Amino acid sequence: MTVHYLEDLTPGQLYRTASYTVELAQIQAFAAQFDPQPFHLDPEVAKQTLFGELVASGWHTMGITMRLIVGSDVQLGWGFLGAGVENMDWPSPVRPGDTLRAENEVLEIKPSRSKPDRGIVRIRTTTYNQRDEPVLIVTAKVIVPKRHPGA
Amino acid sequence: MTVHYLEDLTPGQLYRTASYTVELAQIQAFAAQFDPQPFHLDPEVAKQTLFGELVASGWHTMGITMRLIVGSDVQLGWGFLGAGVENMDWPSPVRPGDTLRAENEVLEIKPSRSKPDRGIVRIRTTTYNQRDEPVLIVTAKVIVPKRHPGA
Repeated sequence: MTVHYLEDLTPGQLYRTASYTVELAQIQAFAAQFDPQPFHLDPEVAKQTLFGELVASGWHTMGITMRLIVGSDVQLGWGFLGAGVENMDWPSPVRPGDTLRAENEVLEIKPSRSKPDRGIVRIRTTTYNQRDEPVLIVTAKVIVPKRHPGA
Repeated sequence: MTVHYLEDLTPGQLYRTASYTVELAQIQAFAAQFDPQPFHLDPEVAKQTLFGELVASGWHTMGITMRLIVGSDVQLGWGFLGAGVENMDWPSPVRPGDTLRAENEVLEIKPSRSKPDRGIVRIRTTTYNQRDEPVLIVTAKVIVPKRHPGA
């Protein structure tokens, strides 16, 4: 495992996560707790909805993506501390049996003006399914400590 | 329960959800599955982190908010179908025992040019804790059907 500090990051760096296969029962369990809509819960009823089939909640896709990021080889000094999200899209739905993986690209590094021990890093995460179709694109602002505060 | 279509929505409309109290065990269970970082899992270890105490994953706060929205009295024609998120912030952390509620404000209504049966509605959701401090602010684009397609 590699721990990265602000000085270690450069725009254009790309970090890949492992992959994870999501099953029907998990999609339904997440939806029952957090997003109980028919297109996430019932394969039959989902056929009559806009999706035409059962798909995962977009927040479940985000949760799986977060889990992949937190479990990846590259860690940040204080962990993955989100200061906010700039935008988020779900270009394709996630279906039962899909295998997801994520790529994180460093977009921009901004040292903090008020707090000399840290900076904000803009990272774009793209989650892909097993057909390399993007299922989630999220750009987040992450708080990253400096290795040498004040330098 | 009221089902709303595109024609029923006006900028400035405000919809409130019920409230929900989140307990330590739930914060830890969510984190174990989706965001296993020490500041979401272990009250003792969390004291040594930037937060100084155990707090909920921001994605858990979003999940609870989604559950409150989906369970509210006001429903949209096709359900809460997110076409994307414009931005998202977590102004204050959520702690064990906090009681959350959300307010949804309609910001803008854009009928689709290509698909005459629907439009995109920009909605800003603010989730508050029991001290009326905002813990989540998210602006989403939601797909809403017209009551009279093509009109």
